[in-house]
Amino acid sequence: MKALEDKLRREATVLSTDILKVGNFLNQTLDVSFIMEMGKEIARLYTHERVTKIVTIEASGIAIATAAAIHMGVPVVFAKKSRVSTQTGNLYHASVKSFTHGNTYEAIIPMDMLSEKDRVLIIDDFLAHGAALTGLLSIIQQSGATLVGCAIAIEKGFQGGGDKLRAEGVRIDSLARIRSMDPETGIEFYA
Amino acid sequence: MKALEDKLRREATVLSTDILKVGNFLNQTLDVSFIMEMGKEIARLYTHERVTKIVTIEASGIAIATAAAIHMGVPVVFAKKSRVSTQTGNLYHASVKSFTHGNTYEAIIPMDMLSEKDRVLIIDDFLAHGAALTGLLSIIQQSGATLVGCAIAIEKGFQGGGDKLRAEGVRIDSLARIRSMDPETGIEFYA
Repeated sequence: MKALEDKLRREATVLSTDILKVGNFLNQTLDVSFIMEMGKEIARLYTHERVTKIVTIEASGIAIATAAAIHMGVPVVFAKKSRVSTQTGNLYHASVKSFTHGNTYEAIIPMDMLSEKDRVLIIDDFLAHGAALTGLLSIIQQSGATLVGCAIAIEKGFQGGGDKLRAEGVRIDSLARIRSMDPETGIEFYA
Repeated sequence: MKALEDKLRREATVLSTDILKVGNFLNQTLDVSFIMEMGKEIARLYTHERVTKIVTIEASGIAIATAAAIHMGVPVVFAKKSRVSTQTGNLYHASVKSFTHGNTYEAIIPMDMLSEKDRVLIIDDFLAHGAALTGLLSIIQQSGATLVGCAIAIEKGFQGGGDKLRAEGVRIDSLARIRSMDPETGIEFYA
């Protein structure tokens, strides 16, 4: 998505060769009209896939998942990262090692929110090592739902998670796919 | 908002006289078209207030804040509950005691995301004791921004947080305001 690549060049900050800061429009301040454009593009990519549910993970996946859901007319289910007192009943869950936070958490979705009748599109803001996505894929598999694909805003291709999952046969669509980045020279995208 | 009261009567689960479960449409599964209707109602309530930014807190405030922002044409800023490695620079922060989780966390917004030029509408899914809202109000005060008001999906009026803040002069609009609730007899709203 050319508009996202342009926006990243213009507005993102490359903190290191690993860390990209997009808090000013994608994951803390939300440029909602731009996020709606990303949601529209995701809806276009999955037009004929009869998606019944979008699955994401709190917190920064929620806005883009909501935007896509508005265009697709389906509900969003987001995985929570900890069990809270209002969660009862049986849960699908998967352990996720966060490279950003350096910890491991449980991604949790109550069993009554996903079923084998669902055709699921996973949406997230970032794909790097693929840890969160692998956790969500495990949850979808536990539920018996059909995975249609994964739509990602920004893939840090050089961290390998996307290619590993593609090699396993998972459909992954990244709106912007970064080949490399550097605080000095900026961001280079895959063609 | 009559439609929200009806939906709560129909789809929410009263777990106890204190705890209401709305994970099936508002804060884990997201009924996005209904959330858009709530966002539209919030936008209507604040039509003439020249709001420049919506502030919420992760995770369950993000969807409704995004919905209102789409109708109002302004960005959303959400407070994070922990410091992550991509956050640098100076931060506004406030301690929040969570009654739901029984812990205390820091609500954090980077200083460059809010300024004294902003006219802020706070949006959240629940108002109970007012702990999260009080934290966000502190952050807005630290920033020098003007608080326009707080729009809440569901206020548990009997827990007192809303009235305490109203008594301090804060404008609070709750789309549904619960007087009492009980697993046996259901939900009673303020007239």
